[in-house]
Amino acid sequence: MSDLLKENERIDQLPAQNIQIIQSPDVFSFSLDAVLLAHFASIPKRGTIIDFCAGNGAVGLFMQPRTTASIIGIELQERLADMATRSIQLNQFEQQLTIINADVTKALDYIPTDSVDFITCNPPYFKEQPKSKKNPNPYLAIARHEIHLKLDDVFYTASKLLKMTGKIAMVHRPDRLLDIIDSMRRHRIAPKRVQFIYPKMGKEANIILIEGIKDGKTDGLKILPPIITYDEAQQYTPEIKALLHGD
Amino acid sequence: MSDLLKENERIDQLPAQNIQIIQSPDVFSFSLDAVLLAHFASIPKRGTIIDFCAGNGAVGLFMQPRTTASIIGIELQERLADMATRSIQLNQFEQQLTIINADVTKALDYIPTDSVDFITCNPPYFKEQPKSKKNPNPYLAIARHEIHLKLDDVFYTASKLLKMTGKIAMVHRPDRLLDIIDSMRRHRIAPKRVQFIYPKMGKEANIILIEGIKDGKTDGLKILPPIITYDEAQQYTPEIKALLHGD
Repeated sequence: MSDLLKENERIDQLPAQNIQIIQSPDVFSFSLDAVLLAHFASIPKRGTIIDFCAGNGAVGLFMQPRTTASIIGIELQERLADMATRSIQLNQFEQQLTIINADVTKALDYIPTDSVDFITCNPPYFKEQPKSKKNPNPYLAIARHEIHLKLDDVFYTASKLLKMTGKIAMVHRPDRLLDIIDSMRRHRIAPKRVQFIYPKMGKEANIILIEGIKDGKTDGLKILPPIITYDEAQQYTPEIKALLHGD
Repeated sequence: MSDLLKENERIDQLPAQNIQIIQSPDVFSFSLDAVLLAHFASIPKRGTIIDFCAGNGAVGLFMQPRTTASIIGIELQERLADMATRSIQLNQFEQQLTIINADVTKALDYIPTDSVDFITCNPPYFKEQPKSKKNPNPYLAIARHEIHLKLDDVFYTASKLLKMTGKIAMVHRPDRLLDIIDSMRRHRIAPKRVQFIYPKMGKEANIILIEGIKDGKTDGLKILPPIITYDEAQQYTPEIKALLHGD
């Protein structure tokens, strides 16, 4: 397998699913977010699934054991798209998984409208703060504007691609819940399932999982059971261990 | 104290706060919701607090030990308003707590606009289903319309009464989250704090606590730590026991 590895890359394994992923400290490692998103998503057994912002392909790889659907990852960064493609080869999933090296907003150039059953998205969270403090408000305003634009890009594109009653699942930060809900609804996607991840009992949620349905009813939102990441001894809880290690 | 009790009434005590409440199986008993709401609310130390849909006065009574603010309960049902008033006498809180027997929408007839620091609301949840199945859709439509009207009544009135940056805290059902957020924002109230109550680990949330601020920023929503009601042995968790019994 080593011929699939480039400089400063390694192969990591998710024992729970017996899947191997090429990682590199230079660029990006899959995180708990990807594992949680793949687990949360109510993915269809067949059809077409698109993974927006695929990174090194983790979410698509983690979904593979649960579906025979075609899974197409969209990733802007060439280096990551290349790693994802080689991870697909490493697992011999080429018949089912594909990577398109493109911006999410260009997905409509590759995939027909109203043709997709399910979309996953683990977007960048825009943690960067403006570096200059000279004009804090204009910088902040621009940053916020970009944030809104990006979420709207995702849901605009998703709404175009999804079949009626197709679904999109996203992982994000809880402080963006209202923006996500607003953007979903601007694009005919009704929020239906939400799950909060709390780092520890007694702590505020630090991850949100949210799934919506295109042209679905807007009532009946469900708040799924809480997931707690760490126990009192700073160890992963049994639930998280099971997701990561299958035990 | 028995001269304050009427037929088929009893006095219950919340040991955690050494407060006595007149209850009756005929009409309404305070529930965990009231205890949770009073505990969740970030109530001011002084000023004016209004408790919408006060019922038998539980939320106001439970808030009293934490504030010197005037607390005014608004309750539509005469029987409940009377019980609440007698509970206030029972605890000798007449200098601080008052009950107005009126509809929430009439609160503006009694209390000046832009004068209130904090509002709590434990509204009816409209669990009733339409009894006739002959015309299910029209009945459902009317029910939904009333539901929206009621939430909008609450937040319209709250927004009128609250000072700028005054707050309102509500307890409700999680499936109404989107309606609550929409209604808040229609009336210049920005959701800021949300807490979910899960009946048990592994179960969906069944209670939501939500607090918003009038004319506040819309970013920065916080999802507070999860509260779990029952443990694996169907006993109250230590957190709930502490709220109810002070141990």
